Amino acid sequence: MTTSAPPLRGIFTPNIVPLDDRGNIHEEELRKYTSWLIEKGVHGLYPNGSTGEFTRFTPEERRRIVAIMADETAGRVPILAGAAEANVHETLSACEYYHSLGVRAVAIVSPYYYRLSPASVYAYFKEIGDHTPIDVTLYNIPMFASPIDVPTVQRLSEECPRIVAIKDSSGDLPHMMRMIQAVRPNRPDFSFLTGWDAAILPMLVIGCDGGTNATSGIVPELTRKLYDLSASGETEQARELQYRLLRLFDVMLYSADFPEGFRAALRLRGFEPGSGRQPLSSGQQVEIESIRDTLACLLAEEGYADEPIGGCPTWSQRVDVEEVSRVVQGVLAELGRRGLA
Amino acid sequence: MTTSAPPLRGIFTPNIVPLDDRGNIHEEELRKYTSWLIEKGVHGLYPNGSTGEFTRFTPEERRRIVAIMADETAGRVPILAGAAEANVHETLSACEYYHSLGVRAVAIVSPYYYRLSPASVYAYFKEIGDHTPIDVTLYNIPMFASPIDVPTVQRLSEECPRIVAIKDSSGDLPHMMRMIQAVRPNRPDFSFLTGWDAAILPMLVIGCDGGTNATSGIVPELTRKLYDLSASGETEQARELQYRLLRLFDVMLYSADFPEGFRAALRLRGFEPGSGRQPLSSGQQVEIESIRDTLACLLAEEGYADEPIGGCPTWSQRVDVEEVSRVVQGVLAELGRRGLA
Amino acid sequence: MTTSAPPLRGIFTPNIVPLDDRGNIHEEELRKYTSWLIEKGVHGLYPNGSTGEFTRFTPEERRRIVAIMADETAGRVPILAGAAEANVHETLSACEYYHSLGVRAVAIVSPYYYRLSPASVYAYFKEIGDHTPIDVTLYNIPMFASPIDVPTVQRLSEECPRIVAIKDSSGDLPHMMRMIQAVRPNRPDFSFLTGWDAAILPMLVIGCDGGTNATSGIVPELTRKLYDLSASGETEQARELQYRLLRLFDVMLYSADFPEGFRAALRLRGFEPGSGRQPLSSGQQVEIESIRDTLACLLAEEGYADEPIGGCPTWSQRVDVEEVSRVVQGVLAELGRRGLA
Amino acid sequence: MTTSAPPLRGIFTPNIVPLDDRGNIHEEELRKYTSWLIEKGVHGLYPNGSTGEFTRFTPEERRRIVAIMADETAGRVPILAGAAEANVHETLSACEYYHSLGVRAVAIVSPYYYRLSPASVYAYFKEIGDHTPIDVTLYNIPMFASPIDVPTVQRLSEECPRIVAIKDSSGDLPHMMRMIQAVRPNRPDFSFLTGWDAAILPMLVIGCDGGTNATSGIVPELTRKLYDLSASGETEQARELQYRLLRLFDVMLYSADFPEGFRAALRLRGFEPGSGRQPLSSGQQVEIESIRDTLACLLAEEGYADEPIGGCPTWSQRVDVEEVSRVVQGVLAELGRRGLA
Repeated sequence: MTTSAPPLRGIFTPNIVPLDDRGNIHEEELRKYTSWLIEKGVHGLYPNGSTGEFTRFTPEERRRIVAIMADETAGRVPILAGAAEANVHETLSACEYYHSLGVRAVAIVSPYYYRLSPASVYAYFKEIGDHTPIDVTLYNIPMFASPIDVPTVQRLSEECPRIVAIKDSSGDLPHMMRMIQAVRPNRPDFSFLTGWDAAILPMLVIGCDGGTNATSGIVPELTRKLYDLSASGETEQARELQYRLLRLFDVMLYSADFPEGFRAALRLRGFEPGSGRQPLSSGQQVEIESIRDTLACLLAEEGYADEPIGGCPTWSQRVDVEEVSRVVQGVLAELGRRGLA
Repeated sequence: MTTSAPPLRGIFTPNIVPLDDRGNIHEEELRKYTSWLIEKGVHGLYPNGSTGEFTRFTPEERRRIVAIMADETAGRVPILAGAAEANVHETLSACEYYHSLGVRAVAIVSPYYYRLSPASVYAYFKEIGDHTPIDVTLYNIPMFASPIDVPTVQRLSEECPRIVAIKDSSGDLPHMMRMIQAVRPNRPDFSFLTGWDAAILPMLVIGCDGGTNATSGIVPELTRKLYDLSASGETEQARELQYRLLRLFDVMLYSADFPEGFRAALRLRGFEPGSGRQPLSSGQQVEIESIRDTLACLLAEEGYADEPIGGCPTWSQRVDVEEVSRVVQGVLAELGRRGLA
Repeated sequence: MTTSAPPLRGIFTPNIVPLDDRGNIHEEELRKYTSWLIEKGVHGLYPNGSTGEFTRFTPEERRRIVAIMADETAGRVPILAGAAEANVHETLSACEYYHSLGVRAVAIVSPYYYRLSPASVYAYFKEIGDHTPIDVTLYNIPMFASPIDVPTVQRLSEECPRIVAIKDSSGDLPHMMRMIQAVRPNRPDFSFLTGWDAAILPMLVIGCDGGTNATSGIVPELTRKLYDLSASGETEQARELQYRLLRLFDVMLYSADFPEGFRAALRLRGFEPGSGRQPLSSGQQVEIESIRDTLACLLAEEGYADEPIGGCPTWSQRVDVEEVSRVVQGVLAELGRRGLA
Repeated sequence: MTTSAPPLRGIFTPNIVPLDDRGNIHEEELRKYTSWLIEKGVHGLYPNGSTGEFTRFTPEERRRIVAIMADETAGRVPILAGAAEANVHETLSACEYYHSLGVRAVAIVSPYYYRLSPASVYAYFKEIGDHTPIDVTLYNIPMFASPIDVPTVQRLSEECPRIVAIKDSSGDLPHMMRMIQAVRPNRPDFSFLTGWDAAILPMLVIGCDGGTNATSGIVPELTRKLYDLSASGETEQARELQYRLLRLFDVMLYSADFPEGFRAALRLRGFEPGSGRQPLSSGQQVEIESIRDTLACLLAEEGYADEPIGGCPTWSQRVDVEEVSRVVQGVLAELGRRGLA
């Protein structure tokens, strides 16, 4: 009843798509980036994920991204291709195309824009699971798309052998445990991947098979090591690494809008991602600029980048919340005096 | 500084797109439906809205829908065409096409999937507002897409003369008042349309110019009358109508997932909308079936449909919540005895 | 089956409780404030509401507040006394006490802290409704307490004749319509009061009987006039007043934490409310200070306060959002250069 | 700068308070329960927690609960006493009383009902932290009370030596990591306790010192063992236990309203908790009845209770979601035929 390919396991990288000056896919840089990731040790690649801004490309571009990466990868690592399109028909057509490219599996996000009920989410994936020519990973990201609940995962796993995994980006650890508990007894081959970089270690500890993590596109060496340390039971060292990854993740995640912080960090690793398709306000451009040094310092600590020219602050120089607050209050008071606030 | 076309005003209908047996656009039925709406008195048409399931069509199909409707309308009423595509570039290209069709304006939903900050939402619409060849209506629907806040609307209205209106589906009345307060002094031509059918009258009372309301696709006579009564200050009668509309709206909105209840009601008005592209579970099909009689009775009360064969319940026969609860508890208890729950 | 007292109707004022220098109830100021409100025309008083910070007083203090106000009122207007205590037993005991004071009715907020299901909310009010010696107003404020849904209101209204009203602070207009639709046919005496000052007029238009509004504790003249204009069908003038009330409400509501903005405004009307029991940070004290001029200007526009010494800005001098944003960005950049952010 | 008492560490039990037939505190049963918990190995006791329904008791009763338990405990284990009262003044007065009883520390929930901003939450705890005679544990439970954010915890930990711990019931693992990261470097004595039973192991793995967990009031042997296994690095066995605890937790947590499922389970462990003070609807009473067998089976699996008379289902007999769904649809269809739905 289950498929014969090996289960999805390890860290799959959801990659940013480099763009050229005209906003088009920068094939050369994308190829270079793809091979770099493989050389740095990621277990697999995950084009057309949320980090890959799949919604901002046309259907044709989404196909081209996977085609380029599959060609560049040449079977070195498995590829999990994001295949969500406008409706079941279009999505199945994309599945067929990705299957023809030889990718390992597709990942399909739950319907978005409309917030669908569990019944509709089930019906959607059931239709896909019954007709897909390629293994399917469910993609649950409730902050952006209709949630996939535990009974739905359980039922789909029992009815659709081609549905072989779930990627969950909720970051909800007990939810992950409830899914594992409900599915694994009947489908030991089913994989559970976490998309929440802040909790990779805890997720592995409670039984996840791996993750699809945006930080692995920036510091693949570090996420790989975290996975290996966890797999070999070196929990202490893994914990230390998880804390360092969290600091980096927080800075990248909360700068302007996602995934701009990751794009800025990628530049520090030597790539030219270009500007994103979602325009930035001038304030956001300043913000991205201002985190560059912080990011450079964090990457320098890990040995992945040079310190910025001005050097990096020691812990004792860290920001004093009270000081910032005082300055901001001062500004507001001044604005008040000028009748502006 | 402002455009010379008359402001958007009145009820614009966001129409369902009839599909044929193969799931393709049913052009003949769409034309028939378009003309029927115009004949029943709606002030304008609004293809590619949320009711129109714009996300479930391909970019090519979205253009074809507007082209068919523009041709059928032949200038009898203004058309507001939903023009949101994958990114600014694609959206502007759609704007140009719709402009070439002669539609009155486009409506562009705020970026969705990702929940963007106000800065990004501003940057997105600013880019569009600066380059569009056609008047633009902002579309705020925070339950599905990134929210457009008051300062963003104010700023865009002041910087972009081609942005001429906002359609707000939040249903948040004070929010609407705050927008009107912030924008109207500088842009008296700017239109405020509500997308929340449950509160059309109150929205008109506090100064809205009209609405884009899904119920107007089912009972255009009733929404038109509600608008006219409100415009002529007949508040008592308008209120009575608003209550009746609310009952109808609630039944359609909360049946299976949106817009299935509206599709079922459209059938009762004599059209053949076909099956939607989002598959339904068997439970949902039963549910849709079960509201058909309720809908038929509500439409019959208004004189728009025949009573179902079994007749319609009087108010005293209405569902007793306690009774339903008791039956459901009984079922669960029985399941428990069978070791099933 | 229903009670013989006249239905609750009009604007009931949820009053702030003035405190003396030691943080105790300032009886003299409370009496003065009570009589002032009555003289300014409010229809009723509502001690121990959310504006009255009922949770920050002890059970004994809550009783004393009502006792003082009932004595001062001496029957001039009806009193609606907040009576929620730790559990049903304590709440009923408070009901008995307030009954002995001769107040018109009590208002009981839904259980808070725990977010209870509709079944529990029903059971709680049913127990109270069956044993109360005094008329009860349900108090729905879902942002702070367990929500009271429509079927629960309907059922309680049908089973408990002593439950005579609901005060709803959700601001959800269709929710109010759904309650009216469900309850009024069987209980024409049941009153619907809105607690959302931003939408008093629209709520009256769709059929509410009145409101319990914090702004009426600051500008009772204005809320009274709004009510009267609405009652006499002068919708245009009422709308204009609602917009002015909204500006005032927004400034008071969003300053520091509720109800600090109202406390600051009360001071401008000539009362000495003292400091609240919830301590303020130094930043918040600055913030309250900084809105005082804005409030004074808004009150001066209405003729209720003097302009501040520096005068009031005209509309053209209003805050430029972009300007503020630029200054704040500048501060953050400077902090960055100092290695502080 | 820091206190000399040993840091809070291990599992502290938030106990249900047994009530007699008249709804009063059942002192004898409470004493019996207290000693049983200590004998079963919990590290400490935590009266007046959320499980202890502190909001449903009067201020006098809350003091009496702690007094009884402190007397019964007689120093065998440390006590963490919930001390939140109506305002800072009353809370400090409770702190003094609990200090006089010799308890180890108090736990103070963030202000609730009103949702306060970080500035207000800081000001509240700062005032308490500066004047308390006894060590204070912050209590963050954002689903019920104003959230305590990371900068607030950091600042309070640096300014108030008597604030020695935080109990966090958010279940948000990265949030816990962010707090540990921000506080521990400067306050190595500061304790981090998790209140989310579904994730005790992962929380311990990332560095928590223990937990305050409602399940430890029902199966103290199991939570103690989970803690010990985690402490000794036996992660595999601890994980297995965490999964079993989760199953039990889910059944207790999602039955009627919290903490009714825990009360039902306590009865199965041989205690007589009585009825809670929050009344239950008849439907809820049936629901509690119906989970008793499920709970008994889960407890029997662990060796803590007898199997119910009808025996326990094997995994293959577990509920078939589809079957339940079919039955429920059938009921609804039947109701429809009767004109009831």
